[in-house]
Order: sequence, then C-alpha cells, then structure tokens
Amino acid sequence: MAVRTTSGPPETIRWRGGHIQIIDQTRLPEKLHYVSINNVKSLWHAIRTMQVRGAPAIGIAAALGMYLGVRGSAAKSARSFLREVERVARFLATARPTAINLFWALERMKRLVKDNLDKSPPALKRLLLAHALEMIDEDNRVCKAMGDFGARLLRDGDTVLTHCNAGGLATAGYGTALAVVYRAVEQGKRIHVFVDETRPLLQGARLTAWELKQSGIPATLMCDNMAASVMAKGWIKAVLVGADRITANGDFANKIGTYNLAVLAKYHRVPFYVVAPLSSFDPRLTSGDQIPIEERPPEELIYIRGQQIAPAGIMVHNPAFDVTPARFVTAVVTEGGILKPPFASSIRKVFRLAEKTLCSARGNKNR
Amino acid sequence: MAVRTTSGPPETIRWRGGHIQIIDQTRLPEKLHYVSINNVKSLWHAIRTMQVRGAPAIGIAAALGMYLGVRGSAAKSARSFLREVERVARFLATARPTAINLFWALERMKRLVKDNLDKSPPALKRLLLAHALEMIDEDNRVCKAMGDFGARLLRDGDTVLTHCNAGGLATAGYGTALAVVYRAVEQGKRIHVFVDETRPLLQGARLTAWELKQSGIPATLMCDNMAASVMAKGWIKAVLVGADRITANGDFANKIGTYNLAVLAKYHRVPFYVVAPLSSFDPRLTSGDQIPIEERPPEELIYIRGQQIAPAGIMVHNPAFDVTPARFVTAVVTEGGILKPPFASSIRKVFRLAEKTLCSARGNKNR
Repeated sequence: MAVRTTSGPPETIRWRGGHIQIIDQTRLPEKLHYVSINNVKSLWHAIRTMQVRGAPAIGIAAALGMYLGVRGSAAKSARSFLREVERVARFLATARPTAINLFWALERMKRLVKDNLDKSPPALKRLLLAHALEMIDEDNRVCKAMGDFGARLLRDGDTVLTHCNAGGLATAGYGTALAVVYRAVEQGKRIHVFVDETRPLLQGARLTAWELKQSGIPATLMCDNMAASVMAKGWIKAVLVGADRITANGDFANKIGTYNLAVLAKYHRVPFYVVAPLSSFDPRLTSGDQIPIEERPPEELIYIRGQQIAPAGIMVHNPAFDVTPARFVTAVVTEGGILKPPFASSIRKVFRLAEKTLCSARGNKNR
Repeated sequence: MAVRTTSGPPETIRWRGGHIQIIDQTRLPEKLHYVSINNVKSLWHAIRTMQVRGAPAIGIAAALGMYLGVRGSAAKSARSFLREVERVARFLATARPTAINLFWALERMKRLVKDNLDKSPPALKRLLLAHALEMIDEDNRVCKAMGDFGARLLRDGDTVLTHCNAGGLATAGYGTALAVVYRAVEQGKRIHVFVDETRPLLQGARLTAWELKQSGIPATLMCDNMAASVMAKGWIKAVLVGADRITANGDFANKIGTYNLAVLAKYHRVPFYVVAPLSSFDPRLTSGDQIPIEERPPEELIYIRGQQIAPAGIMVHNPAFDVTPARFVTAVVTEGGILKPPFASSIRKVFRLAEKTLCSARGNKNR
C-alpha cells in the first residue's frame, strides 16, 4: 500500500484581523465563500441559519463568539465582566438546542473567567481570545486522534456509508466520521465513501460530496432512501456517523436519518460506528430521550432554493435530529480511544482517564 | 362515524378529441397542466420523462399510445396491421423497464388483434381504441375494489405511512395504496397520512401531498429518512405502498426506498401492506432478483429544478426502484381480495380464480 496524502479538509473557521471568518455552508457546493463576522448577533444568526454547523464547529464558533460579545465591554471589575460573559453565554445558548458542544464551549469560556477573577477585564479578554483560538488547535488534534483510532477499524478496499456532514466542514480539523476516512486514506488504504444526500438540508450532497471530491477521495452520492438496498447488496462494510450529543448510556442524537441507518445496519449486520469527541458527550443525561430535539421550519421541505416542491400549507414534520439507542452502536470512536459496549461503563472509564486533561466544565446547566 | 365523500382523485389520463390528455406530473404541485398527445413518440417521451408515471397509469397510457401508433396505418390486411401493432409495441416497451403493467397493456392490445385477424384494419383500429378506453373504466373499478378490500385493514383514527405516489395520479382511478385511504375515509373513518417526500423525484411531496390536500385528507409531509423515528414513536399503524412488479413468490419492485421502509416496518412491528392490481403481477418470474431495475440519470440528484445541490461530476447511484422480499410483506391487497403469506400459494390461487375474467395475455415476452 502506497501512503498518500489527501489535500485535507477545508479551513471551515478561522480568525483573521479581529473577525471570525467562516465558510458559508448554505452556499456550498456552488460557491466557496467566507463570511466575516464581527459581532455576537451575527454569530448567533450564522449558527441558527447553519452557515456554520456540525457539533464541534458550532462549539468553536460559540467560543470565538463569546469573545466578540465581550471584547467591547467597559466592565471595571472581573465580577461585572463575568456577568457580561454570562449574559452573552445565555444568548448564544439559544442559537441551537441539540448539539452539546455549544454549551460545552460556552461553559469552558465562563469557567476560564471564574477561575481568573483576580485578573483585570482587559486581561480576561485576552485570555478568552487565546483560549478560543487554542480550541481550534485542540479540535485539530482531537480530529486526528479520532481519525487514527477509527482508521484501525477500516481495511484496504472498504466501502463505507456516511450521513450528513461529519467532515472537515463540521469541525476545525479533519472532521469526526470523515477523519477516520482521511486518516485511513493517508495510511494508504483505498476507501470508497457512499454519501447519503441527507434531506432536508442536503449536507451530504452539498458538503460531504464536495469535501470528498476536493480531497480526491472516491465518493458516490445517493438518496437517503437507497441505503437499505445498497446494504442488501453487501456493498457497505461500515457505517460512520458523527454525533451531536451522547448520553451516559451511549444513546446519541445526530442528524435526522441516523436512527434510520442504524436500524438498517443492524438488520444487514453492518458495523455501525459513531465518531465523536469527548466534548460531544453529556454524561449528566442518563438516556437519549432526555435530549432536546430541534424542530425546524416547514419551509425546509416545501422549498429548495426558492423552488416550490410541495403544496404550500401542507403539514410538515421536520425534526433536525433523531435519537439512536446505544444497542445499535458497534463502537464509539473518541480521541480517548475506541469505546465498546457496554457503553455505560466504557464511557465512565474514558471520562475518568480524561479527567486530568479535560476542563472541569462538565457540570454546565445551559440548555 | 359520519360517512363522507372525498372530492376524489384527479383525472390523470383522459381521451379528448382524438388526443390523449395527461396531467403533466413533472409540473405539479405548482401547475395543474394537461399535455395533449397525438402521436406515439410523444407518448413514449411522456412515459420516459415521467410526465405520466405509476404502474397502472403507464399501462393505460401505453394502450392508448398503441392506438395512436397505428391509427394512421395504411395496412391492407389484418396480418400486416398486426406487424405494425407489434412494431409499435416493441417501441413503447422501451420507454421504461420495471413496471410490468406497460408490457401487460401492450400484450393485451396485441392479443386483441391476434384474436380478431378475420377483421379489417379499420375495424381493428376501432377495436383497439374501444379496448384502451375500456381499460380506463376497468382501472377505475379495480382501484375501488382494492380500496374496499384494503379499507377493512384500517381502523377509525389510524395514521398510515405511504411512499412515492400510489394515488389517483398513478392510475386512472382512486389509486392503489391511496385507494385504501380514500375508501376508508368515504366509509367515515378518520385517517391521517404520513407522506415520504420520496427522493429524488419527490413524488410524495409533489404528487401525494398535493392529491391528499386536494381531497381534504389530513396529511403530514416528511423526509424519507424520518420514517424510522416516527415508527419508533409509535405514530404509524400501517405502511401502504404500491408495486411496479410482483413476482410469483410475492417479492416486489417498487419506488426506491420501499425496501428501506419494509425493513423499518418489520423492526418496529408495523404492518406492511402492498396494494396492487393483478396487472402488476408477473408470475413468470419466480423471485424479485429477476426484475430489471431502471437506473436513472445522475442529474436527478445533482440538480433540483435547475438548482445545483451537489458538486458537478460526483459519482451518483440512482436506481429508480428497489426490490422488497416477500418476507417483509404482511398482505397484498388486490382487486381479487387480500392475499396473505405464504404468497406463492395465495398468488397462484387468486390467478386461478381470476383466470376466467382476465385476458389471456399473461405470457408476454416483452422486456
């Protein structure tokens, strides 16, 4: 096997000249366009409208957004600065309800201020920016680590199936599920990716297909409803998906259609892998039915890019996520290693191990 | 329960002033527009591009198209007229490969000529037109009969899930799967229909949602990938789908995504009903793997109504149908009654019973 390098994932989110720059993911694949964001309201809007999406990327955007929200603060004391930080966090926490990384990132930023109340507001501002930027580098390392662990699960010549976009565009690095593919390919394995188009917002068609094509990794696009028939043909060796929130028992929320795939994979005896950083875990929740699920507007099904595709006024069911019970999951790939069932204990174990290096911000209460 | 009448299905296909008039289904739901067709090439094109679609409607369109193809014939003898009929049949048979009704209708028209070789070509032309028009009335009766048998399976207050369009727009009458809903509602049962949008051509969103809304039947549109989660919530009491071809053992081909639903229904213990006329059976085939499956152009996934939604040049998997093995089917509703497993024998039995009234054109060899 010849070792090759992929051209790698795109730079989804970056900090330039005092602005957050994000790839406007609503305009892909037609246009690769960076939006420049210099205030917290625009950042909230960018998360809500999914210009930036993907659990890890939302977390990083929120951390940088927190800095935008307080960099102009005139607070005279650390305590009054903290109150402003908390107000901005409450606001950003309302952007999207399901991905835990948003709350995790905001909690980290608050914790940083709480732990440094002896510093001046200007010093705290510098600290917040440095910490948010460090989270970009950290995400990069975490993605590579997940990719390296996960790549062990794939063999040369494998065809995998993925849903939504759990790639570079969902993180600041190699992605989650796609990090496994990128790293396997860099190790010289030939991997072919089947991409669910992922209705209604078509993240698979618009983002994953684009990202893989950019990286030169062979990919086949199909509709979500074709997954069962390609599994029945024996084409798929593994399903790889990301996660927006994983509970203490291993249940997880991810893009709508993931549970669909999980049932199909179980029936067809295809291994089903979840790839997610430890920041996507919410060990305070004991099971998936406690995860709040975002319902999105009916227009997402009635129109596509201004074209009407269903009768106006029709009732619409449009949850952004579904919950997959842990019993469907073969393994969860994290930066701390590959977790296997029973997940309640493997999750407990990895958190105990990671405790020293992880920030202590697990107890967040923002929902 | 108060008995109510639905406003009924639309008139999908009709004969007016020497032309076939069909609702152009590619323009729904935005525009209800009839296309007038007066030659066999336009009819072939209308089937190929799915201006008319749905197995029974394709059959009727083909029968009328056969008449269009030979009405100008200058043949001097019945035998040379038959050769023209066979030539037109061979041409129309290439329009789409999967739905058996196309071949069944063409075979009926050929058989009619073969059985009347003592008549003159002008008389044979009149016979062909009368027979094609009779097929419209027959389809109407068959749809109602399927609807009445199927309605017994639904209870007041049930919510059902359907895929693609197996409604009035797929037939000349009440439809297949939706005939069951229409008749149940006419009997006074309250039925709510969940409609899979049915990618890539969105027949659920564009056609089924439109048709049900026109008829005043409560319907909720959702993406194909949401079926598993609504089943897990216990919302769905039955799945109702049509069929493009059913083999001797009960395996069947239907719109891509049907097999997907069948696996999900089995896992969630939701009854899975196929509703199809006897003209959709192909008892010469012993199992579903013998059914030819149409692969459609990649553009159907890369563009929606001219809007690009995936990177140009991406590989695409786009089968128009999938095959569901008989073991997933709870019952098959036909105009001859409700068939139950084991299907090999229940199918044999219904065909023996129907033999007297069915035309003898079962032995067609067109593929």
